[in-house]
Amino acid sequence: MLESLRGNILADIDSDDLRVIVISAKGPVFSSGHDLKELTSAQGRDYHTKVFQACSEVMTLIQDIPVPVIAMVNGVATAAGCQLVASCDIAVVTEKSTFATPGVNVGLFCSTPAVAIGRAVPKKVAMEMLFTGSPISAQDALLHGLVSKVVPEERLEEETLAIARRVCQASRPVVALGKATFHRQMAQGRDAAYATASRVMVDNLALRDGQEGIRAFIEKRKPVWTNKAEKANDE
Amino acid sequence: MLESLRGNILADIDSDDLRVIVISAKGPVFSSGHDLKELTSAQGRDYHTKVFQACSEVMTLIQDIPVPVIAMVNGVATAAGCQLVASCDIAVVTEKSTFATPGVNVGLFCSTPAVAIGRAVPKKVAMEMLFTGSPISAQDALLHGLVSKVVPEERLEEETLAIARRVCQASRPVVALGKATFHRQMAQGRDAAYATASRVMVDNLALRDGQEGIRAFIEKRKPVWTNKAEKANDE
Amino acid sequence: MLESLRGNILADIDSDDLRVIVISAKGPVFSSGHDLKELTSAQGRDYHTKVFQACSEVMTLIQDIPVPVIAMVNGVATAAGCQLVASCDIAVVTEKSTFATPGVNVGLFCSTPAVAIGRAVPKKVAMEMLFTGSPISAQDALLHGLVSKVVPEERLEEETLAIARRVCQASRPVVALGKATFHRQMAQGRDAAYATASRVMVDNLALRDGQEGIRAFIEKRKPVWTNKAEKANDE
Repeated sequence: MLESLRGNILADIDSDDLRVIVISAKGPVFSSGHDLKELTSAQGRDYHTKVFQACSEVMTLIQDIPVPVIAMVNGVATAAGCQLVASCDIAVVTEKSTFATPGVNVGLFCSTPAVAIGRAVPKKVAMEMLFTGSPISAQDALLHGLVSKVVPEERLEEETLAIARRVCQASRPVVALGKATFHRQMAQGRDAAYATASRVMVDNLALRDGQEGIRAFIEKRKPVWTNKAEKANDE
Repeated sequence: MLESLRGNILADIDSDDLRVIVISAKGPVFSSGHDLKELTSAQGRDYHTKVFQACSEVMTLIQDIPVPVIAMVNGVATAAGCQLVASCDIAVVTEKSTFATPGVNVGLFCSTPAVAIGRAVPKKVAMEMLFTGSPISAQDALLHGLVSKVVPEERLEEETLAIARRVCQASRPVVALGKATFHRQMAQGRDAAYATASRVMVDNLALRDGQEGIRAFIEKRKPVWTNKAEKANDE
Repeated sequence: MLESLRGNILADIDSDDLRVIVISAKGPVFSSGHDLKELTSAQGRDYHTKVFQACSEVMTLIQDIPVPVIAMVNGVATAAGCQLVASCDIAVVTEKSTFATPGVNVGLFCSTPAVAIGRAVPKKVAMEMLFTGSPISAQDALLHGLVSKVVPEERLEEETLAIARRVCQASRPVVALGKATFHRQMAQGRDAAYATASRVMVDNLALRDGQEGIRAFIEKRKPVWTNKAEKANDE
């Protein structure tokens, strides 16, 4: 599953036509994380190491690729499944969806999910989830920043695609530069972050699509993007 | 505008009488950020660089000066205007106020606003704002920590000044030491942060106003501040 | 009081039977922090230094010990008392409980409480508390992540013990590994955090209790923990 996710995420990653990725599931479970049968001692330490490396790779890949990734969730997201939701840029979920890190109950503390969840919600929320394994509701997940939007089940696809379409209206290289910069500057101290982001603003303005957007705004017309990371002629 | 803001912020900064700064606006827009006409290719890369340096300087200045800065917002705050709200220590806003980072729509991703906003609200809230450009309401801004208080329009000034007055009842050097220490320790790891803050508590106690406050509390009377960063006689 | 707290926390820390610690108070005040009479100039700088070192030591100890610590709060928690709540892993509080950092009013800015509170709630929430000294309600504390759960007064003990019991159903070394890893990886950058946590997952699987938990899950029975940090035979 992790390899399949990885392959699908990377399939068209360099195509100018790829502008947003939506991850969803069929059935009442969004994802319940690792298959515990893969984690018995029979599989051995090297195999376990490989599994968690593959998992971390997929989770960080979602943040490192140039297009936004939206989780569309209708049901249960637990352990690495909850980590997957936390790792996406945007998450639209139904009212009945729940989120948990129950590993502690089966003797396997959700330490890798905690990397993504601990960076998404307040510390006390993360710790109660991790120490008790109890699920939180979609509303609580929204309240604490784990998900972006809670919608009735019958409107899940419509609301998710509305956000996806908004993302697609923007220029691909502009979004790509913005996404990469967001994660980069957030890992820096404030002053270094401003130095990084200020340089990026100037680079963004030097893009053909950067100049087109500003001209279109001034001329009160819709912009026409190239969606290519090309510099403007006059730069 | 940025130079004027900078000048006004610094005007009386060393005066013992300056205790709090309130930033507000006239009309239905608090601030819509940069003037896009300044950001066309006609202005050139060096000018763009100068603009974003000036902007980052004002935003960090707000956090680095010794008095608290309160944003009093009644209307729209977008892009660098939203960054300004995020950069203030406290923000009191009316119910009709909205907050957005719509740069992505005009081909200029709000990467510098993201430095302040990404440090104020949960990551998923910041990313949805940045990727979609959609505004959030005053209530959502409160829910996620972007603003401190939402009030009816007719009570905006009253509520803002009530907070300002509370700040003014405290000793200036005590507030200055506290504000500087807050930002400094937040950039450190936990143990270094405690070492920093513990030293500061002892220094605070050595201030004339630190000792006066404690004596007044014990003697059940109102403290009389010097508002000067002087050490107590017996230190 | 700090020495007594420290002694009590450490009393049975190495016993396999200690699985969770609950900190509570008698009377209408959970804790109002330092005794200001200990902080007059009469006590002297060296004594002040000793007091704040003892305080920081207790606060960090709570996070560094191998069992979760739950604050059970029914009343006022101010200054270092509010820091204590922020420092616990989980906090269950009654509706009437309030939280404040009023040091600024007595000329002693709550800089050490700010280390814990600034890492628990959004920055603007922390700053308004610190600059104004005004209390926040239990509901606002919940909203912003300072506490884990708000309950009616008559159910405080029941709800707290329900969480404590859930923690006790898990294996002690699994919880200990998870707690230590949580705080360790949260202090690291994302990629280093994943490297840390992935290694820990593999180590967790190598524990006797790790393998027992997974086997019990597959065999659909309740796990029987050793509660000892022993490796499984086949590792």
